Amino acid sequence: MINKFVMPEVIFGEESISQLGECCARVGAMNVFIVCDPSILNEEWLDDILKSCLNKGLKYTLFHELTINPKDFEVEKGLLLYKQFECDAVIGIGGGSAIDVAKAIALLSTNHGSIQLYEGIDKIKAPLPPQIMVPTTAGSGSEVSQFSIIIDSTRKKKMTIVSKSLIPDIAIIDPKTLSSKEPQLTAATGLDVLTHAIEAYVSVAATPLTDVQAQSAISLVAEYLRPSVASKLNNKAKSKMAMASLQAGLAFSNAILGAVHAMSHAVGGRFPFSHGEVNAVLLPHVMEFNLIACPEKFATIAKLLGENTSGLTTMQAGLKGIEHVRNLSIDIGAPQRLSEMGSVEEYIPEMSVVALQDACMITNPRDITLKEVEALFRQAL
Amino acid sequence: MINKFVMPEVIFGEESISQLGECCARVGAMNVFIVCDPSILNEEWLDDILKSCLNKGLKYTLFHELTINPKDFEVEKGLLLYKQFECDAVIGIGGGSAIDVAKAIALLSTNHGSIQLYEGIDKIKAPLPPQIMVPTTAGSGSEVSQFSIIIDSTRKKKMTIVSKSLIPDIAIIDPKTLSSKEPQLTAATGLDVLTHAIEAYVSVAATPLTDVQAQSAISLVAEYLRPSVASKLNNKAKSKMAMASLQAGLAFSNAILGAVHAMSHAVGGRFPFSHGEVNAVLLPHVMEFNLIACPEKFATIAKLLGENTSGLTTMQAGLKGIEHVRNLSIDIGAPQRLSEMGSVEEYIPEMSVVALQDACMITNPRDITLKEVEALFRQAL
Repeated sequence: MINKFVMPEVIFGEESISQLGECCARVGAMNVFIVCDPSILNEEWLDDILKSCLNKGLKYTLFHELTINPKDFEVEKGLLLYKQFECDAVIGIGGGSAIDVAKAIALLSTNHGSIQLYEGIDKIKAPLPPQIMVPTTAGSGSEVSQFSIIIDSTRKKKMTIVSKSLIPDIAIIDPKTLSSKEPQLTAATGLDVLTHAIEAYVSVAATPLTDVQAQSAISLVAEYLRPSVASKLNNKAKSKMAMASLQAGLAFSNAILGAVHAMSHAVGGRFPFSHGEVNAVLLPHVMEFNLIACPEKFATIAKLLGENTSGLTTMQAGLKGIEHVRNLSIDIGAPQRLSEMGSVEEYIPEMSVVALQDACMITNPRDITLKEVEALFRQAL
Repeated sequence: MINKFVMPEVIFGEESISQLGECCARVGAMNVFIVCDPSILNEEWLDDILKSCLNKGLKYTLFHELTINPKDFEVEKGLLLYKQFECDAVIGIGGGSAIDVAKAIALLSTNHGSIQLYEGIDKIKAPLPPQIMVPTTAGSGSEVSQFSIIIDSTRKKKMTIVSKSLIPDIAIIDPKTLSSKEPQLTAATGLDVLTHAIEAYVSVAATPLTDVQAQSAISLVAEYLRPSVASKLNNKAKSKMAMASLQAGLAFSNAILGAVHAMSHAVGGRFPFSHGEVNAVLLPHVMEFNLIACPEKFATIAKLLGENTSGLTTMQAGLKGIEHVRNLSIDIGAPQRLSEMGSVEEYIPEMSVVALQDACMITNPRDITLKEVEALFRQAL
């Protein structure tokens, strides 16, 4: 079997964000288009890096008209500005939405037509302008991944766009950018990290290179997500969660994901729910369903989460890991049922059809039918 | 602290070598310069991939005038041919020497002057042509690293050239290419892998991203190097050692190395010894010297090597790991003393001075003096 592993250049650690200007120069950018989460506009560090860009003679255009999930019309609006100001590179600063919109603008700046044309795997033909991403949540992993997830606002569907062209040139991960987040966001994004790591680890496309990243991410989440949610000032926990997010991103970008993400994309296309919270609700149900596909891997997950599995059968150990995921989610106050977020029941048949067609479903370790997807949604209601 | 991690696109697994032609097309190459180990000229798979390149409309020039360690005049000779045939990309197929020569030719094809001008860190200015590397030993790790080691034949010195520009565009790792190697070469290159992994793991520049790779490589060597030396036909062991080599390469390319490599480069500049064998002899002595710098890490190395360390102090566990390295080297018939390879004693003062100035010494975890380097050489005599 032939496997591939691709990643951007990664710069990480305290103060790494100060290198943004230099990175822009290095990729040949003179006039950058910055897609930025509106929530970080008042951050002091944002001012600092924008000034450092100006000091290096760079011009920039700031675009921040984003909502909770990335929409096609937001991409179109950004693209117009990118062209109007004749920008030559794209920078994304924010959570997964800002980074995914930044990637989609880069895509359409050199590839014609609407974003819908690029849904699926390897549809991008022309090379993209340089892309530099700075995540401010831990997080989406989009800063290192070959994915961009954009909502088709007409079809009310999250489109999964997968291409090596979407792997940024440089990812800058500075734990400082994580310190201002509310506990609910820290919890949701942290459980998204765990979902990335677990789905990549049990993916049928997992390799030794993705496994080491996924395993490390699972251990880090088990140890540091609770304290990271507990206190904005726990810098060590924030820093470890930033590393977990990065490693989970490297794992899933190369091993792809599974049923949790396929189903979560279907929900996210229809409802304005938090992606991380939807994943968190679905994860233990999908783990139970997938358990028989690779019990050994689920037993390893239990150990990585810190469970003592000595004396247990492989299946018992696997179940203990799933129980751990449930308890972790409860400990940090994440929702436990989809119904806590809104009334989704009537859309289950429609969302199940969409989920079954999602690119992430291909690598789920257990074959799945439409009826089984519907049943999983109902369990999670 | 700001850390960086960079790697090429990696394609690995059985039959991945069949993708060489497609990879050339993808990086825009039309007329490739192939630097190739003379030992593989009769391999059937080499014929196959050369034919596949021709079938894709590619032209190629094959250069194979290489000796056991890569020399400056071999680089010069290759460069002349590269220019004469107006090539536009460089491919290296072979062990570390072939790959390092390929990188150096790529370097000089766009950067003027002699290779000596680029010794040290970050001296390369102009961008390099596309580079694709296919390692046939497990191995040097050069296919993923930012290093090229070239012998200055006048000064009788191995020059360490370090630059991100030397990271190839694509590394293709196919375990099939390893099956024809003699046990002595498998042992030497395998112990080189172990040395890369251990030096990168205890390096002062180690990061969580390099640690996961180094740890995995150490475990794989402990489990699969012996059986890989034992039988040419043990495909599983060969495949695991190829992965170990790749992971150790990713670790040391980003965390750099230490005193073993600094000293080994000094020996290799003066004597035509096998790089892997010199490393193997020096490794346990340097580990003993470095032990007090990071006992916890050495204790972890013991565990990764499969030692039971329960009930031991950290220092005792560290020593057990060093003992394991010695026994592994004996088990696979590697030389235990430098004097088995030749008479080096009179050159110890000169080699110690050279070793102390090697770029790899900077990241050794324990400060080291000239006298201490000399003493380590004498212990290894």
